[in-house]
Amino acid sequence: MTCSELHVSADGGRLCSYQDVLNYLNLTKSNELFFMTRPVKDYQQPTVVSVELLLYAILDVIEIAQTFVPYVWIDMRWQNQYIRWDPDDFCGIETVSLPTDVLWKPDLTIEEMTEKDKAPPSPHLIIHSDGLVRVQNDHMLVSTCRIQIHKFPFDHQTCNLSFKSVVHSVKEIQLVHSPCSSKTSDMTMRSQYEWLFVSMTVTNKTVDMFDLKQDMLIYTITMKRQSLLYIVNFLLPILFLLSLDIASFFISEREGEKLGFKVTVLLAVTVMQLLLNEILPSSSDQIPLIVVYCIGIFGLMMLSLLETILVMYLMEKDDGPPEGKD
Amino acid sequence: MTCSELHVSADGGRLCSYQDVLNYLNLTKSNELFFMTRPVKDYQQPTVVSVELLLYAILDVIEIAQTFVPYVWIDMRWQNQYIRWDPDDFCGIETVSLPTDVLWKPDLTIEEMTEKDKAPPSPHLIIHSDGLVRVQNDHMLVSTCRIQIHKFPFDHQTCNLSFKSVVHSVKEIQLVHSPCSSKTSDMTMRSQYEWLFVSMTVTNKTVDMFDLKQDMLIYTITMKRQSLLYIVNFLLPILFLLSLDIASFFISEREGEKLGFKVTVLLAVTVMQLLLNEILPSSSDQIPLIVVYCIGIFGLMMLSLLETILVMYLMEKDDGPPEGKD
Amino acid sequence: MTCSELHVSADGGRLCSYQDVLNYLNLTKSNELFFMTRPVKDYQQPTVVSVELLLYAILDVIEIAQTFVPYVWIDMRWQNQYIRWDPDDFCGIETVSLPTDVLWKPDLTIEEMTEKDKAPPSPHLIIHSDGLVRVQNDHMLVSTCRIQIHKFPFDHQTCNLSFKSVVHSVKEIQLVHSPCSSKTSDMTMRSQYEWLFVSMTVTNKTVDMFDLKQDMLIYTITMKRQSLLYIVNFLLPILFLLSLDIASFFISEREGEKLGFKVTVLLAVTVMQLLLNEILPSSSDQIPLIVVYCIGIFGLMMLSLLETILVMYLMEKDDGPPEGKD
Amino acid sequence: MTCSELHVSADGGRLCSYQDVLNYLNLTKSNELFFMTRPVKDYQQPTVVSVELLLYAILDVIEIAQTFVPYVWIDMRWQNQYIRWDPDDFCGIETVSLPTDVLWKPDLTIEEMTEKDKAPPSPHLIIHSDGLVRVQNDHMLVSTCRIQIHKFPFDHQTCNLSFKSVVHSVKEIQLVHSPCSSKTSDMTMRSQYEWLFVSMTVTNKTVDMFDLKQDMLIYTITMKRQSLLYIVNFLLPILFLLSLDIASFFISEREGEKLGFKVTVLLAVTVMQLLLNEILPSSSDQIPLIVVYCIGIFGLMMLSLLETILVMYLMEKDDGPPEGKD
Amino acid sequence: MTCSELHVSADGGRLCSYQDVLNYLNLTKSNELFFMTRPVKDYQQPTVVSVELLLYAILDVIEIAQTFVPYVWIDMRWQNQYIRWDPDDFCGIETVSLPTDVLWKPDLTIEEMTEKDKAPPSPHLIIHSDGLVRVQNDHMLVSTCRIQIHKFPFDHQTCNLSFKSVVHSVKEIQLVHSPCSSKTSDMTMRSQYEWLFVSMTVTNKTVDMFDLKQDMLIYTITMKRQSLLYIVNFLLPILFLLSLDIASFFISEREGEKLGFKVTVLLAVTVMQLLLNEILPSSSDQIPLIVVYCIGIFGLMMLSLLETILVMYLMEKDDGPPEGKD
Repeated sequence: MTCSELHVSADGGRLCSYQDVLNYLNLTKSNELFFMTRPVKDYQQPTVVSVELLLYAILDVIEIAQTFVPYVWIDMRWQNQYIRWDPDDFCGIETVSLPTDVLWKPDLTIEEMTEKDKAPPSPHLIIHSDGLVRVQNDHMLVSTCRIQIHKFPFDHQTCNLSFKSVVHSVKEIQLVHSPCSSKTSDMTMRSQYEWLFVSMTVTNKTVDMFDLKQDMLIYTITMKRQSLLYIVNFLLPILFLLSLDIASFFISEREGEKLGFKVTVLLAVTVMQLLLNEILPSSSDQIPLIVVYCIGIFGLMMLSLLETILVMYLMEKDDGPPEGKD
Repeated sequence: MTCSELHVSADGGRLCSYQDVLNYLNLTKSNELFFMTRPVKDYQQPTVVSVELLLYAILDVIEIAQTFVPYVWIDMRWQNQYIRWDPDDFCGIETVSLPTDVLWKPDLTIEEMTEKDKAPPSPHLIIHSDGLVRVQNDHMLVSTCRIQIHKFPFDHQTCNLSFKSVVHSVKEIQLVHSPCSSKTSDMTMRSQYEWLFVSMTVTNKTVDMFDLKQDMLIYTITMKRQSLLYIVNFLLPILFLLSLDIASFFISEREGEKLGFKVTVLLAVTVMQLLLNEILPSSSDQIPLIVVYCIGIFGLMMLSLLETILVMYLMEKDDGPPEGKD
Repeated sequence: MTCSELHVSADGGRLCSYQDVLNYLNLTKSNELFFMTRPVKDYQQPTVVSVELLLYAILDVIEIAQTFVPYVWIDMRWQNQYIRWDPDDFCGIETVSLPTDVLWKPDLTIEEMTEKDKAPPSPHLIIHSDGLVRVQNDHMLVSTCRIQIHKFPFDHQTCNLSFKSVVHSVKEIQLVHSPCSSKTSDMTMRSQYEWLFVSMTVTNKTVDMFDLKQDMLIYTITMKRQSLLYIVNFLLPILFLLSLDIASFFISEREGEKLGFKVTVLLAVTVMQLLLNEILPSSSDQIPLIVVYCIGIFGLMMLSLLETILVMYLMEKDDGPPEGKD
Repeated sequence: MTCSELHVSADGGRLCSYQDVLNYLNLTKSNELFFMTRPVKDYQQPTVVSVELLLYAILDVIEIAQTFVPYVWIDMRWQNQYIRWDPDDFCGIETVSLPTDVLWKPDLTIEEMTEKDKAPPSPHLIIHSDGLVRVQNDHMLVSTCRIQIHKFPFDHQTCNLSFKSVVHSVKEIQLVHSPCSSKTSDMTMRSQYEWLFVSMTVTNKTVDMFDLKQDMLIYTITMKRQSLLYIVNFLLPILFLLSLDIASFFISEREGEKLGFKVTVLLAVTVMQLLLNEILPSSSDQIPLIVVYCIGIFGLMMLSLLETILVMYLMEKDDGPPEGKD
Repeated sequence: MTCSELHVSADGGRLCSYQDVLNYLNLTKSNELFFMTRPVKDYQQPTVVSVELLLYAILDVIEIAQTFVPYVWIDMRWQNQYIRWDPDDFCGIETVSLPTDVLWKPDLTIEEMTEKDKAPPSPHLIIHSDGLVRVQNDHMLVSTCRIQIHKFPFDHQTCNLSFKSVVHSVKEIQLVHSPCSSKTSDMTMRSQYEWLFVSMTVTNKTVDMFDLKQDMLIYTITMKRQSLLYIVNFLLPILFLLSLDIASFFISEREGEKLGFKVTVLLAVTVMQLLLNEILPSSSDQIPLIVVYCIGIFGLMMLSLLETILVMYLMEKDDGPPEGKD
């Protein structure tokens, strides 16, 4: 009586449309069987969700906010036991794409993610004739990551992305990792910015949160900072200024200019140090080496200034009496 | 007549799917009994909502905007009296996960929160056979907090997160705190940034707003600033500059360079002071100690400069006549 | 035949659930009577909306963007003539809480608000047995406000929040103010930041926009800036620098250092002036007093410098010939 | 049989509710006649949309991003031929307000707008007994505008807001401008910030995009920058510095301080120039006059410095031999 | 029996409304045939989606974030085989506009896009009598682009926008480019800001992602930076400062001012270099030429300073003994 039945019969059964499969499965937008509960016929069977993560770009690593912002493609697959058809009955149709919201989806979340993706999810998913459901989505993940800045700017960073279900226990949803992802990541990675992708490893563990044993799939991403520009723009100028301060040893103490020269160089280092304040967070329990480098050079210059003042004072005292004698 | 009934009977009653439970409860997306009103059979019974808060990270504490941004997991549980089944009738099914929007949820809000979470809530909740409903959600909370900067950067801060219902009175919704949360918080806290988590306490009180007595559950979070980097980067350089200014006592007044040296050091302190302006808010009724420290050193240097000028003037006056006599 | 009817009869009529009231009112999610049109039986009766505004915090006052950002709780009440039941028929049920979207709500807007609240509204509202409907919502309002910076930082500001209906005329929606709000505001105000709340007054007027007479309820909020930190951090250092410049009168003109000293102090004032540029907007038709203060001191110093140069020139000219005579 | 019919008959026909009109029109949320297609009985009749734009505030003009951010109220009116009733049949009801999403609305967009308004539209619209539909909305428009900075800060800017339908051709939707808008704009404009509103004109033209002739209504807004504070804070200090540099002509070349004085003044101009970089975009094909002013003064000072060095060199060379002779 | 049928017959069949076409097609909001699956009668027929991209403005190119933000209009067309009518049967109606969500749409995404458009899509689409469906949308695309800053600010940039389906293989969705787009782009481009549009080319290729062969349509946009203001504001002042440093060769080494002059000029270059740090990202594996220019001039000045100090030391040593002899 529906429109689709009519035209199919008019085609004499030769052509098969996707709608025929949906009619066979009784899969409509309002059929609650497909989206209300986990799609297993026996509730004791866990749903095995196969996750594949493709690291597409490292958008940002913010030291001050301890934030890691990757851009990833996530591919998820699982069995829906209410979906099954024989492709031979439908001219060989093996997959059908559907609107995302007509089917149940696992409520996977990434534990480190602090801002949820506000954009609507991918509009379509794919179902296979054997009940496999497949969803792909791209996400910009804003996630926390404990960034170690001790060796900045020569540092490696290791950040985790931990997938887990929000409410389902390990008895209900199990997570497995598709084996091919870390390999493809290398090849598809684009626009590496300041960070060079080093490696991605996957581990699986069971955690206990709010008295609920849950399966967790942890992607660990290691990356390396490209430090060339920091050397040229930050470390080198400070070294230049230090060498100037050392060279000022050869300026005569008697003329007034030595002191002015040294204090101006010190001022330049102070400005450089303020720039450093903007880059580094204040979280560390240990002081970053670059701060030691900076404050060390600052301290050295100050000591050298104090020594200059002392020498000048002594020389003047030395010179004074003869003049007085004149 | 529905699809689910068909396959269940085909399985001979041996297997139980979650859909069977929903059919028994008559729980469908359109059944208004489940989401229109508070789910009690006797309206005089209050709904007791058990709240558990897990502080996952302190993302930010912004002094200027007096804002505290924690990242928390919230677990809420309550009784829905329209939900009840005997697990034995359904092969032992004790919990069913459902889409979040088919059931009534308490309208809890956090009074301090100034930006609502725009992201969609967690897609699933869990119902238990005894009527317990359980929802978990992660939130990035942007909340106001009166930040006391008097002792900056050696300060402790105490911020509140006050849960209350928006429209329900204490007769309708009562809030209780699950006892295990503060303990777990310590262990799961990640990425502590600038702030060290000290403690979290929970108190319960009844407030009166718009002539409505309401239950309120207040989580009080205490944290401590890690001040090491502030000392090294801000307090130490100013101290260095002060020591330079003091050392300038040994520079001869007769040469022109003493004045130039002192005024350059004063300029460096001024720049440092501008940096301080960016960090501190202007709200205080009392002046923060660090401002006193800064303006005090600035004032000292200025006085020392004035004194230098005076001494030079007197010396010159002293020297002048003899020269005139020549 | 519905689930709720069944259990009520099973309870023997002793217990009353909220659902019973909804069944009596025939209030369902799809009943268009309740949300399509203004809920009056006689269209000539206006709907009187009682508004109560609770100023919870002054989040920000941005001078450059002329923006005022308060955080408020708004409580609205009106009569829905299709809702009425006798509490005695339902064991004394006097109020029922409902999802917000099943009932008609007045389309109140705040005329000054430039960014609409993107967050979803409060999920529940309350209906009373006499037809009163009550909605509470918290909003972060980003509103325009003409900020007078003439007396900065010793200024008071007065900002309006004008409630009006978007499309309804004064014949359809009338606004009244609940008398208790301004009183409670004082007590509940938290986290006052830079601004001290002074007072809030309410006025009612009728405006004409797009040829439509509309009722408008204007809340006028007056606040006072806490200027202590501005004095200590901005006005005081400039005054210090001015005193240094004046003191330079005592430096001998003959030595080279007077000019260098004065121009360095002038540079410090210039840096301070750039800071001022960041704080103040460029809208004014009259120049703020603080700019006059700054540019005045800058001008004074420049004149003093010019005078110094002139004096030095004249003295040198005076000294020159005798040297030439040597 | 519905609830509304019952109580109307109970009132004896004396009172008329809005619902009666909707029942007469068969206007329900699910009646696809009202929202699926353009509401004309003869498809060849165009829908004439009358647009009225009220410029409420100029929120921002960002030179660097070439962005114009006005805050406007838009009033749209058109005929819906499926709506018509005789007010006399309904006790004189002439207008009914309805939820916005039950009726078809023209898909007007503003071509220059780069960020769509994410906030939900106004919740209600009004229908008149003769079929006129009227919608009001307030928008914060983020639109592109080619900003001419040649004469900054003494510039006028002209920005367009071009209304057009997204998919409908001129045969389907025609745009006309209500005559009263530009007049009212003047009076209702609030909070003018940095920009003074000068005038608003409206033109109508037909454009061809993607092979589709479409009607376009272009509002052209002209405004004038308030330049007083720029003069006081930016142009004046540079002029002061230039006058100092000129005055340095009177400083004796023999003393060391002339060079130091001139290079410090040059440094101050450099800092001012960096500030200019932040204000101006780098798009121009012609250099703004203010940049010419700045770089010109910078160049003048540099030339004057070079000349000073040369003069000093020549004087020293002149003095040298006699000393050598000593 | 519906309202529309009634009035059409009342008009005597002379007038045709759009609703008549929808009734003929049985196209309602709830007819799942139109939005659930790809609209082909034979599943083996691919849906050919014709894409046309109109580059309306280049809003931003952020070097530090390696981000390209164009503002584009996208026009998509494809066949819906369930839609077909004879215009002659409906008084010549050839196109009907419909709400966007009643029909299936291809799930095209742009691979480089890192932030999805959160705004709702265009409300209407158009269907033609031969089954062609046409959608237009405007997007602000935030996309990654590997920006080559080696030749900054004289650089060309080339950014890609790669359209592909999220889940459909090349057998299901094929992408073709409408030939007229690149031509029109030139003419409609507005507000070019800092970047001059040079050219746009289109290529088609098949990619393999997650074991799925997919069609991809790549738009390559080339643009050229307008470098005039960078030259005037950044390169020129540094050159001026270099010429000052060179000119200092003529300042006598014996006076104290040469050293102070040179170190002040060096400080000005340092400040300029910090400005450069803000503009350039730190990603490069090769150092940008402008950094070489800056650090080279900085190094030259430092060497010249060291040489000055050495010369002064040698001269003083030379002078010393004679004095000692005195």
